[in-house]
Amino acid sequence: MTKPLRLHPDRLFPSDPATRDIARALHATVRDLPIVSPHGHTDPRWFAYDQPFADPAQLLIVPDHYVFRMLYSQGVKLEDLGVPTVDGSRVESDPRAIWRRFAEHYHLFRGTPSRLWLDWVFAEAFGIDVRLEAATADHVYDIVDAALKTDAFRPRALFERYNIEVIATTEGPLDPLDHHRAIRASGWAGRVVTAYRPDPVMDPDDPKFIDNVRRFCAMAGEEPDYAGYLRAHEKRRADFREAGATSTDHGHPSAFTANLSLEEAEALFAKAMAGPVSAREAELFRGHMLVQMARMATEDGMVMQLHPGVHRSHNAAVRERFGRDKGADIPVAGEFVQALKPLLDRYGNDPRLTLILFTLDEDVYSRELAPLAGHYPAVKLGPPWWFHDSPEGMRRFRERMTETAGFYNTVGFNDDTRAFLSIPARHDVARRMDCAWLAQLVAEHRLEEDEAFEVAHALAYDLAKKAYRL
Amino acid sequence: MTKPLRLHPDRLFPSDPATRDIARALHATVRDLPIVSPHGHTDPRWFAYDQPFADPAQLLIVPDHYVFRMLYSQGVKLEDLGVPTVDGSRVESDPRAIWRRFAEHYHLFRGTPSRLWLDWVFAEAFGIDVRLEAATADHVYDIVDAALKTDAFRPRALFERYNIEVIATTEGPLDPLDHHRAIRASGWAGRVVTAYRPDPVMDPDDPKFIDNVRRFCAMAGEEPDYAGYLRAHEKRRADFREAGATSTDHGHPSAFTANLSLEEAEALFAKAMAGPVSAREAELFRGHMLVQMARMATEDGMVMQLHPGVHRSHNAAVRERFGRDKGADIPVAGEFVQALKPLLDRYGNDPRLTLILFTLDEDVYSRELAPLAGHYPAVKLGPPWWFHDSPEGMRRFRERMTETAGFYNTVGFNDDTRAFLSIPARHDVARRMDCAWLAQLVAEHRLEEDEAFEVAHALAYDLAKKAYRL
Amino acid sequence: MTKPLRLHPDRLFPSDPATRDIARALHATVRDLPIVSPHGHTDPRWFAYDQPFADPAQLLIVPDHYVFRMLYSQGVKLEDLGVPTVDGSRVESDPRAIWRRFAEHYHLFRGTPSRLWLDWVFAEAFGIDVRLEAATADHVYDIVDAALKTDAFRPRALFERYNIEVIATTEGPLDPLDHHRAIRASGWAGRVVTAYRPDPVMDPDDPKFIDNVRRFCAMAGEEPDYAGYLRAHEKRRADFREAGATSTDHGHPSAFTANLSLEEAEALFAKAMAGPVSAREAELFRGHMLVQMARMATEDGMVMQLHPGVHRSHNAAVRERFGRDKGADIPVAGEFVQALKPLLDRYGNDPRLTLILFTLDEDVYSRELAPLAGHYPAVKLGPPWWFHDSPEGMRRFRERMTETAGFYNTVGFNDDTRAFLSIPARHDVARRMDCAWLAQLVAEHRLEEDEAFEVAHALAYDLAKKAYRL
Repeated sequence: MTKPLRLHPDRLFPSDPATRDIARALHATVRDLPIVSPHGHTDPRWFAYDQPFADPAQLLIVPDHYVFRMLYSQGVKLEDLGVPTVDGSRVESDPRAIWRRFAEHYHLFRGTPSRLWLDWVFAEAFGIDVRLEAATADHVYDIVDAALKTDAFRPRALFERYNIEVIATTEGPLDPLDHHRAIRASGWAGRVVTAYRPDPVMDPDDPKFIDNVRRFCAMAGEEPDYAGYLRAHEKRRADFREAGATSTDHGHPSAFTANLSLEEAEALFAKAMAGPVSAREAELFRGHMLVQMARMATEDGMVMQLHPGVHRSHNAAVRERFGRDKGADIPVAGEFVQALKPLLDRYGNDPRLTLILFTLDEDVYSRELAPLAGHYPAVKLGPPWWFHDSPEGMRRFRERMTETAGFYNTVGFNDDTRAFLSIPARHDVARRMDCAWLAQLVAEHRLEEDEAFEVAHALAYDLAKKAYRL
Repeated sequence: MTKPLRLHPDRLFPSDPATRDIARALHATVRDLPIVSPHGHTDPRWFAYDQPFADPAQLLIVPDHYVFRMLYSQGVKLEDLGVPTVDGSRVESDPRAIWRRFAEHYHLFRGTPSRLWLDWVFAEAFGIDVRLEAATADHVYDIVDAALKTDAFRPRALFERYNIEVIATTEGPLDPLDHHRAIRASGWAGRVVTAYRPDPVMDPDDPKFIDNVRRFCAMAGEEPDYAGYLRAHEKRRADFREAGATSTDHGHPSAFTANLSLEEAEALFAKAMAGPVSAREAELFRGHMLVQMARMATEDGMVMQLHPGVHRSHNAAVRERFGRDKGADIPVAGEFVQALKPLLDRYGNDPRLTLILFTLDEDVYSRELAPLAGHYPAVKLGPPWWFHDSPEGMRRFRERMTETAGFYNTVGFNDDTRAFLSIPARHDVARRMDCAWLAQLVAEHRLEEDEAFEVAHALAYDLAKKAYRL
Repeated sequence: MTKPLRLHPDRLFPSDPATRDIARALHATVRDLPIVSPHGHTDPRWFAYDQPFADPAQLLIVPDHYVFRMLYSQGVKLEDLGVPTVDGSRVESDPRAIWRRFAEHYHLFRGTPSRLWLDWVFAEAFGIDVRLEAATADHVYDIVDAALKTDAFRPRALFERYNIEVIATTEGPLDPLDHHRAIRASGWAGRVVTAYRPDPVMDPDDPKFIDNVRRFCAMAGEEPDYAGYLRAHEKRRADFREAGATSTDHGHPSAFTANLSLEEAEALFAKAMAGPVSAREAELFRGHMLVQMARMATEDGMVMQLHPGVHRSHNAAVRERFGRDKGADIPVAGEFVQALKPLLDRYGNDPRLTLILFTLDEDVYSRELAPLAGHYPAVKLGPPWWFHDSPEGMRRFRERMTETAGFYNTVGFNDDTRAFLSIPARHDVARRMDCAWLAQLVAEHRLEEDEAFEVAHALAYDLAKKAYRL
């Protein structure tokens, strides 16, 4: 006997009736607002060429490390889920077989945000009314598979169906931005912008760093010396702005920043371009370049995002066999107060800079990030990130940030995903959780109801547009 | 159209009706208890000379870094809020202009404790019934300004109106304590005591350290050698006790303590008095002197408070232009287990010592502080401090401390403020949050109701008097 | 007038009526499940020889550091509570006098889990209906004392009365396991197994390390060289398995692991056996041996538990006078991501290994442990440990772990106690808190009700049996 799948209209709202009523009222005013998606990892080719998604497994399992890491943790082989290997050795290629394995283990997602997002996708996007489990695997597969063959499930149609006002992708510094040009050339009205993510040319620990920088400078028509390298950043930032970018993004091992003198910077750049440097030198270079990015931001108006503190590809065997981004990235303890001081000493009071900070270490929420954002004009708080893009994660974020930083030093929600259909699902969760939090403040007489309506609108829409200058 | 301002009688209580009823009943028994304010930063001149407060901006904005830091974080210049500059260069001097800027940005405080305190002050102290915003700025200003010109709003009248049984100020080791003497000489019955805060003569990193110590020893009639310096502390502690002090207070970069031998201490003191010492030597001296303070506490009975873990004046430009205490102090990660061991090895089991610990790093609540307080006879837990003197901060404190340390190793509430009218506002929040927490324990059958009434009284009144020996 | 003692049937359930109803329904299905106790410190002699417990103080106060540390923190001397001294100097020997002191201070436990457990024991185990306080001390004492003299309160009877399906004790590597043999030889049907805790022969910082290792190798008939030492572990693990063990347990200062080469390991072992080694060398040896334990676990199928991060016997004076385990163990900050990488690089993907991680540093819950468990097949999450074996501790554990690791990477509950009667009391708290958490998920439509029933059963029973291979 199959079990019904239905999204309860009060999902994620508090159970207390008085508070729930307030949450419902707040949510009704933000539920249908357009989606502003200022940070994410969707593929610009989807919007440029509008090709259908391949099959249910390729849409929902193979590219989603949230999904396959959980199955892997319980003994399912990545090969059996169709995750491609680095050397091209054989993995499961039958999407229905992959899907059945997923369905058999669907109970593992109980209590996780993946379950909320997936159920939303099944019920809301595909109109499915039975719960996924082994017995319904084929039924669900068939519905999803059939839908993906229709025009209504092509990327642009979904973009419009979910009322996306603007979405940002993320491209590397060597990207020719052809797909973004193709989107614009196509005449389609959807607003898809890029974001500048220069990590590959800022991190001497990257094995391809020297080659990357040479290609990067060549793209910009500059010599690969320090002055040319800085000008190349300025030119490429301009290229990205032409492709709609309003922001840069920086994924560093830590929030460390540094102010090297021109001579020191030139010498360190030259050394890094000549061969391997020490861990400390690599950190100095990254830290110095973050301050240079802040300097350029004050000049060209791009918003700066910093995502530090992840030990990438912690699992050596998985890294070797399957490559990066396979669910084995593990957060590490964060520190922002000392780390950001060099940058903030220079640009923290500059009204032209917006520096949006993210962390996976929730300990710094109330200890470091909220006090920094509640003082420095340049600092804003990015929404709960990655593992914390979840009901409890969002609750902790509001509980620990609001009292010191207020609402107006936050920047709305980031879906931050490469799973296209999870975008509306994630915004749905965020809007509900924010309304639930505001409802609690109102019910406890910590915020007036008319103010809660204003704040709800700001959190769902206004703050993201304003902070990202979209 | 203006919006009404009213303090809801159930504010900060849980929305669940059964729990709220318990909270109401508990609160009714503690609401009107006298205020015991064992740690704060009010100005003793207020009570000594009972002069009226100058104007609304000087009362509520200019001295309150909670308020102006938030406006600053959103782009309002400190000059435009009347915050004085170090070099005396011109800042806004029109209190009404400052007030209007504050009112225009009042929405920034939504969800913050400042908003709760300010609304309390407007409604309860001044009887204002409209919400502050741009449109009501002048109306509110006029009411507050007029009230401040009346005798009812002089410091002593407010002290009596708010039923303050005893309040502690904080003075430095070079303070002649004249204002405290003037209070006593005045014949006024209000109990205002001082507290001994010797940081300026214990921190070799302070640029004025050498001069401070010379003046300090001279005040006490002692030679500026190590033996004389220790005797000067003993004498000045006695002076402070004569001015009512029952406690000392220590604001250190960390909780580090050390037990130097007499020879080591003499040598380090001599070195520090001869010129700059290394960061490590400065830390050793501070750590050694904390143990000496504990030793003196066992001899003279003064309660010892330790407030570690803040990076003071993080914003170099603000520090240079406006000086210290301008909302740019940022907490850093704390560590107490290793740091306090030297002190606790000597005096942790001494029944004469009470060491009250504070932190801005909430991570140590359940990990370090509660286990220490739940074992060592000397250790007690100070209330949630500074950024955490807030509804969520207080909730986290109780949730993470109580199960390991119990209620009786805590010491009641500290308002810790230099904003006089926020004292009753802060005690109001603390009493409500404690009753809300106790009500939840009762509603979940984790504590019997008759016991909750006893605990509520203890948290609101008894524990502070007992711990601070007031 | 005495106050009634009654255990409310809804204790620990949320007050919100809708959520409480769900919690009640869930709890009704797990309340009477057999107790699986896979990790604890009960004395195997109880079950081997079934002698009555001595008296109320020896049962409930003298051996329970949770109880006497709280009294000590409020000035009660350990001597006056009958805690034995190292040198055998005189302590209180009258159990009734000890009991009266305990009863006078019973209010100190308000809000603590000890209070919940003790009230459970009084009401449920002994049928007492008045609250313990000074006035009822003798009455309660007499009831407990009389009961302990009856057969119904002998260890085996209590084991059966509380429906314990299996319980694990913990023995050191030098233990002859005679008591476990006696249990089996007795013909009694109760299932009592041991667990292998080799810390004393793995920690060169232990003053008795060299002697311990010599005795350990001799017990196993091996030479005390590195190869013999490893074989001794393998043989002793086999001995423990014969006494029912399915797990090993490791209590280390940190989670540090290391992969030394054979030559390095041999040299370090030889050095440690020749005399004191440096702190770093001791850490290297412990870390290397943890990986060896993982290797053996993949070979012999024993489950591996790691309990790191406690500063043992922090109070030097208490340690000297009363010895270890006297309530002065204080947690320190944890780090698992770097620390475990050497072990996980070797065995993290090995389907034969189960590595159960515990921590007293709740900061690592969402930052490190949940992401590790949500990826590595070998890693599972031990339940909230020690200070966090409490309502709030359990709530934090579920809130911070579930969304990233799911329920199925956790392993049920550990009572981890040497206080026999607190075993059913602790499982009662755990089952209630898990049902309360699941009820909230259901009430907020984050989990379907039929799934919550399955998960409740898993958390109360299935997961412990499966993870510990019992």
